[in-house]
Amino acid sequence: MLIPKTHPKAASLYIREKLVKGYRSGLVIEEGLMAHGRGEAFDYLIGEKTSKNALRALKEAAKLLLLAKSPVISVNGNVASLCPKEIVKLAKVVNAKIEVNLFYASEKRKKTIAGFLKRNGAKQILGVDPRFSRKIPRLDSARRIVDKRGIFSADVVLVPLEDGDRTIALKKLGKKVITFDLNPLSRTAQAADITIVDNVVRGMRILIEMSMKLKKKKLVADKFNNKKNLSQALVEMNNNLRRISYA
Amino acid sequence: MLIPKTHPKAASLYIREKLVKGYRSGLVIEEGLMAHGRGEAFDYLIGEKTSKNALRALKEAAKLLLLAKSPVISVNGNVASLCPKEIVKLAKVVNAKIEVNLFYASEKRKKTIAGFLKRNGAKQILGVDPRFSRKIPRLDSARRIVDKRGIFSADVVLVPLEDGDRTIALKKLGKKVITFDLNPLSRTAQAADITIVDNVVRGMRILIEMSMKLKKKKLVADKFNNKKNLSQALVEMNNNLRRISYA
Repeated sequence: MLIPKTHPKAASLYIREKLVKGYRSGLVIEEGLMAHGRGEAFDYLIGEKTSKNALRALKEAAKLLLLAKSPVISVNGNVASLCPKEIVKLAKVVNAKIEVNLFYASEKRKKTIAGFLKRNGAKQILGVDPRFSRKIPRLDSARRIVDKRGIFSADVVLVPLEDGDRTIALKKLGKKVITFDLNPLSRTAQAADITIVDNVVRGMRILIEMSMKLKKKKLVADKFNNKKNLSQALVEMNNNLRRISYA
Repeated sequence: MLIPKTHPKAASLYIREKLVKGYRSGLVIEEGLMAHGRGEAFDYLIGEKTSKNALRALKEAAKLLLLAKSPVISVNGNVASLCPKEIVKLAKVVNAKIEVNLFYASEKRKKTIAGFLKRNGAKQILGVDPRFSRKIPRLDSARRIVDKRGIFSADVVLVPLEDGDRTIALKKLGKKVITFDLNPLSRTAQAADITIVDNVVRGMRILIEMSMKLKKKKLVADKFNNKKNLSQALVEMNNNLRRISYA
């Protein structure tokens, strides 16, 4: 489908096309398409732009990634489809590893995603070689399999668009968790250390820019109150809903 | 997937399963899965229950359908997957015709949907026999094809989960339009005569019950202010968002 640039929903439709392409090439599953729809609705409610609270979270996330000893970017089918180049670029800037990790795991899909990321410039993709598999305790599905060289030994994990059980399990393992989640009330949003309430396509680009800038400075991690930042995300959502209601 | 009845999201997950089944049997397309996700997010914001404003709209919708001369229920892949039995039952109670009408039209998918509705008890399904095709003026896609015996000659059309262009075109043709739309700000919601801001699975059941009750009474259509009712839907959504924000 050809989307004219002047279409009022062009940005959102262009992103949607990326996801449908990802679905057709085996990166994304049906559940992922529905999850994207939920995201679209929340993005609509935040006005389809990066908010102040998202910028605060993005800045903290950049710092945490730069200060980490072994940061890992955990990638699923949706994230890979939406911003493959950004994942590769961010990994390079903050010196992070990339690991494929799926809620609905399948060896075939893992390999498809790894191949897609490599075609987009990634050198090494963890999570696909069973010789390095380790299990996260107390998680009873396929999701508990992680890579010994990646998430298993990481101190900071960026898990964009992740499910709640998974995030909570990573927290229990003592990892610092950064997430992208457009629903500030989701269990993932609530459980993470830093929740970026923003569209992952917009947010990843800002995260890369911020990381490049901050890399040159001497960094100290601030105390970041994620719960407080999330309430502000909700207040902004509320104000926006009120504003569009009376437009 | 087996969903335990005690799961906090059981109702929503059960509905989602219906849609994925619909997708796998060719009733629903990728775009429909994403649209469902958007609906889920809005349903979450209204607390996953039928609100007072939805009940008001449902009552008016029941009256309008019962008072209509030739009411038609327009069915797409999502609606057919989610509530086939309810469509058939409602058509019987209010004496309406059922027409398959797709945003992304394909003869094959139309036939699949018609067959599915027939297996769920429908006697006649319009919209599949090209001998009765008529075009809605000023709509430039496949969506403008309607059935001469159905939507083309209807006075009242129920179009659950419809797109904005289509709803506006039906209005221009002089039809009274009733819709189900969980986003009170969508163009469809704003253009329709009666907008039911509710999950179609919950709402259709109530619409059937109300129609059965009202059928026995002498009916007069009230003046119904859809815009006012929609603002109340937004106020309720806002209050709910505020309530869950501070929980």
